[in-house]
Amino acid sequence: MKQQRAVRTRDALIRSAAETFESRGYVQAKLAEISSRAGVSAGALHFHFPNKAAVAATVEATAAATLRRAAQAAQLPGMNPLQRLTAASHALAGELQADVVARAGFHLSCQTRHRTGADLRAEWHAWVSRQLAEAETQGLLAERVRAHDVAVAVTAATTGIEALAGTDPQWLSPAALTRFWHFLLPCLTRPEALTTLHSDPHTRTA
Amino acid sequence: MKQQRAVRTRDALIRSAAETFESRGYVQAKLAEISSRAGVSAGALHFHFPNKAAVAATVEATAAATLRRAAQAAQLPGMNPLQRLTAASHALAGELQADVVARAGFHLSCQTRHRTGADLRAEWHAWVSRQLAEAETQGLLAERVRAHDVAVAVTAATTGIEALAGTDPQWLSPAALTRFWHFLLPCLTRPEALTTLHSDPHTRTA
Repeated sequence: MKQQRAVRTRDALIRSAAETFESRGYVQAKLAEISSRAGVSAGALHFHFPNKAAVAATVEATAAATLRRAAQAAQLPGMNPLQRLTAASHALAGELQADVVARAGFHLSCQTRHRTGADLRAEWHAWVSRQLAEAETQGLLAERVRAHDVAVAVTAATTGIEALAGTDPQWLSPAALTRFWHFLLPCLTRPEALTTLHSDPHTRTA
Repeated sequence: MKQQRAVRTRDALIRSAAETFESRGYVQAKLAEISSRAGVSAGALHFHFPNKAAVAATVEATAAATLRRAAQAAQLPGMNPLQRLTAASHALAGELQADVVARAGFHLSCQTRHRTGADLRAEWHAWVSRQLAEAETQGLLAERVRAHDVAVAVTAATTGIEALAGTDPQWLSPAALTRFWHFLLPCLTRPEALTTLHSDPHTRTA
């Protein structure tokens, strides 16, 4: 029972830290605000985390785990690399839109200055590049396009969608992402391959 | 003479403030560092700027003026909307890569928390949307694409390129941007219109 309460307190602190980092920025976030938002004492916070950097590292690690798990879960057996790509992008956008911890941790990981763990944007770029290299090998890409150029465009656009969502969350909505893929997929795939793809993960129509 | 020196001092302070904001972030930037980087006394800084917010507002306004001027200068008479779009993107990337004041001011303008002037990303999105709406009216867009969807993809990708350049400046290089347009332009234009376009502003080959 005591341990369950400790886990709940820690989870509440991670969430309130994420909210505080998102609204104030890392530098101006105060431990006092983090503990009071979580409804616990300063002592309870210090029992779990020695300092602000430790809280931020935990928010980052939690976000990285959530985002990797979501991208993984979206990739179903039998999907081709382009299907994996669109499915993972929708899953990541969903997590970033719904989960303040994923969002705050992702933002921390984008800031060279406060990053403690992996650079999640670089990880996404590397993963996108692998999917497109594999799509090229499998003959899914249109004749005139090169895997590397598509990876650059897709990484840039998805990174930009996340950045623009900072001022307008609608950029990460399923509808916006579906329209984006609906425009982009026909540019990069062979017409034959296009019929196997869908811009929206919930329907079968491209 | 005295006035010339005042102008030079003010310019040096704007530049050193931009460098300091870029390396420390707005919150951790100290006025003492800004004045000593510029090689002037704290008193000289205070003669020009009452506080940090005033320095930041000037960096932002200077960047906005530089970027608007660069985008404007890139648009030559007789260009169609898609030519204006690629030309302006190259001009903006060039300024952001070369000029720390443009970069720092652009970043301040992206942060709701510290922004004092225009939201330059929103301004870019509106401008891109206007060019594409005009391209649609002029019959330059490919049959299957809609101006709104292209505007979303182009705004997202160019915003992402700028964001990714934060950790790797190569994203804003002319070569990278040329490859990006070289991939994207054939997706959005009619084949006839494509022959009038070039991905690289310095050559006539698309």
